[in-house]
Amino acid sequence: MDRVDLSIDDIPTRWYNVLPDLPRLPEKYIDNSTGAPVTREYLERLMVRAMAGQESSLERWVTIPEQVRDAYRMWRPTPLIRAVALERELRTPAQIWFKYEASSPTGSHKLNSAIAQAYFAKRDGHRRLVTDTGAGQWGSALALACRLMDLDLLVFMVRASYHQKPYRRHLMETYGAEVRPSPGGATRFGRRLLGESPDHPGSEATAVSEAIECVHDDAGSRLAVGAFTNFCLLHHSVIGLETRRQLESIGRSPDYLIASVGCGSNLGGLALPFLEDKLNGADITILAAEPEACAPLTHGEYRLDFADSEGRAPGVHTYTLGHDFVPPPIHAGGLRYHGCAPLVGLIRREGLLDAVAYPQTEVFKAGAEFARLQGYLPAPETAHAIRAVIEVADECKRTGRDATIVFSYSGHGLLDLPAYGRYNAGLLRDVEAEDFVAPRLEGIAV
Amino acid sequence: MDRVDLSIDDIPTRWYNVLPDLPRLPEKYIDNSTGAPVTREYLERLMVRAMAGQESSLERWVTIPEQVRDAYRMWRPTPLIRAVALERELRTPAQIWFKYEASSPTGSHKLNSAIAQAYFAKRDGHRRLVTDTGAGQWGSALALACRLMDLDLLVFMVRASYHQKPYRRHLMETYGAEVRPSPGGATRFGRRLLGESPDHPGSEATAVSEAIECVHDDAGSRLAVGAFTNFCLLHHSVIGLETRRQLESIGRSPDYLIASVGCGSNLGGLALPFLEDKLNGADITILAAEPEACAPLTHGEYRLDFADSEGRAPGVHTYTLGHDFVPPPIHAGGLRYHGCAPLVGLIRREGLLDAVAYPQTEVFKAGAEFARLQGYLPAPETAHAIRAVIEVADECKRTGRDATIVFSYSGHGLLDLPAYGRYNAGLLRDVEAEDFVAPRLEGIAV
Repeated sequence: MDRVDLSIDDIPTRWYNVLPDLPRLPEKYIDNSTGAPVTREYLERLMVRAMAGQESSLERWVTIPEQVRDAYRMWRPTPLIRAVALERELRTPAQIWFKYEASSPTGSHKLNSAIAQAYFAKRDGHRRLVTDTGAGQWGSALALACRLMDLDLLVFMVRASYHQKPYRRHLMETYGAEVRPSPGGATRFGRRLLGESPDHPGSEATAVSEAIECVHDDAGSRLAVGAFTNFCLLHHSVIGLETRRQLESIGRSPDYLIASVGCGSNLGGLALPFLEDKLNGADITILAAEPEACAPLTHGEYRLDFADSEGRAPGVHTYTLGHDFVPPPIHAGGLRYHGCAPLVGLIRREGLLDAVAYPQTEVFKAGAEFARLQGYLPAPETAHAIRAVIEVADECKRTGRDATIVFSYSGHGLLDLPAYGRYNAGLLRDVEAEDFVAPRLEGIAV
Repeated sequence: MDRVDLSIDDIPTRWYNVLPDLPRLPEKYIDNSTGAPVTREYLERLMVRAMAGQESSLERWVTIPEQVRDAYRMWRPTPLIRAVALERELRTPAQIWFKYEASSPTGSHKLNSAIAQAYFAKRDGHRRLVTDTGAGQWGSALALACRLMDLDLLVFMVRASYHQKPYRRHLMETYGAEVRPSPGGATRFGRRLLGESPDHPGSEATAVSEAIECVHDDAGSRLAVGAFTNFCLLHHSVIGLETRRQLESIGRSPDYLIASVGCGSNLGGLALPFLEDKLNGADITILAAEPEACAPLTHGEYRLDFADSEGRAPGVHTYTLGHDFVPPPIHAGGLRYHGCAPLVGLIRREGLLDAVAYPQTEVFKAGAEFARLQGYLPAPETAHAIRAVIEVADECKRTGRDATIVFSYSGHGLLDLPAYGRYNAGLLRDVEAEDFVAPRLEGIAV
């Protein structure tokens, strides 16, 4: 069998919450203004009320609301596909399977949590969500989710992407979202940054700061979060839960679970539902693939740091390169973030997560090879996972191990084709020169 | 049930050939150099040998080769999805279902025939396929197919798209195809056109002429055809065959079968497998949706005409606007062709096919509304079908008819987002001004 489908009735009815199964709980979030752990009141002012609750819930299973499950029926369950041609090319005895999350209407796994957050925001009576997005995968997923749940949305999009990669901005706007560049003129923080540095390209961290400022200024708004938080990883557990069922149906269990990591939402979604097996002695390697240019798990340190660039977001304990680290302009925009989700940092700290980092040219080589062999063109983010899969499969060839390798195909690369074009033309470099030139401020939206 | 999936084992084992079930056979192709019907030898020099045979075969069922079916397993069967939110919005008693062909790795139905043509080309010992493409849907499908079947490919891409819509060109090149703009310097015909008119934007018809010239000049090459031919519609019959099975599983039969028509490959694929029911008295309306700016079925006449702009392709009887008609630069590049497939022309001529044409702004309005309601962003081509569906569903509301409307969701619109951006900004016009400015010829590929 080269593809394992589930029936539409097999969409999970419950999310899996890993917190009660962890060796220890994550450190509490810190209120940077007081240095003390954040209060429930603080969180509920910042986030959707239900999310503040899910963030620290110790319930192992959380029922998926019927309306969320209904929306999941647009594209879930997603197929588990065997990369037969890649196996053949690598002459590996391992089996390589990928969980194909790119079939969602917005093209990535992000919709799993977007729909949940929009649903709860509506249910809890909030009028508007505000969020940040890099290349726009999260923003477009949330834009669709807010449309489906009849909710307003304001998106701060990293300024370089806003101007240079307008496709996903058009998609967000088609869904009805308001999209502003970050830094930009919509917030005091954005105006200050632009004042200091009119060419500032922005980053996820500046966009989070602006989003939080907007939430503070408007009682009807709450912050939506595309990765990082525990509840976000909770929602993405549908990825791993379906994968488990699909593997069981063909009598296999995973030896390797591999995903790219920016913050860790797709890694968490795929791997955390298998963590208890690992803790109970199953020989499972969980492997995070990072960009060499921005690799907190590989090159960062585990400590308290800000989640945004200004310190408005709570302080968290995790692996970080420092909140003032400005990631170089690699094409995998979704991986340009200085830290990783506290839960992902914690399992790394506990020795349950391996990590590896690759330079951009190797990543695109792997992505292009995968497209030629398997037909599907991966997002640069996803191509990091594929690069790691190739390394593991090669190792299996050397050792003769017929391992079961499962990776998260988190998104397609159709809106990243200019970067593949640069790769095809031999122009791509490991770290691209900073070629962002900010548009002149007169006459355009800042 | 809001989505009907089939099992991977339900991929059809045979294509359906409508020719033996037609009221009369299509007129023979004409050799423009002699005025007489083309010979089998002529066709076999132009096309893959097996294709020349399939073109006039009267076998009702044609076995799908195992290797083609294997490749179909990448994404087939495709789901049949009910557009519940659209029904609700329109307050129509009709049920609206769409056959979702956009889940193929290249994003449209085109891969159904691309894989077949590449398979037979390889089997029949040809070294290379040569083809034309407009916006690139067909070219990227064939590029993947040729890669899977280990075959060379040369694609002539309409020059305006080559320069202004490079995404699908990058995709073709990632799959390993050679892509040249048409008109361009690769052929005598291309050089002549550019000599006369250096800013010539090209069209499907110029690209076909250049492709045929290359095939004539190279004995190892054959022409691959993305629409138009009988064999192409044969391959796409998997769309309608699966749809029939899906509808049967929920106890429904179609009252309306709706698709956009450029040449008619997705209309033919969806509708022809139901034609016999219609001929046997079933009350089925088959409806073609065309762009007002290029509507051979609505505004053309049925007569003998060239399939390309130079008269190198065979002459055919069909509905045409004239082979020298240069379609205005609407965004639905896949519908910019002066004529339609002879089989589609024939069923129109026989009164079995209705047609309707819409201006571009109405089409984008329908496409954007569909995205907001159903999540999936349709290609501008597909949005034509959606516009027609809305009209039919509104009519059902007036008459109170709970009809079953089925339409072909032929492709996604993710690579057409700049056009949606223009629509969102209120800049889109029914016929866009000819804003193609040919790049200067020095220093770039022509």
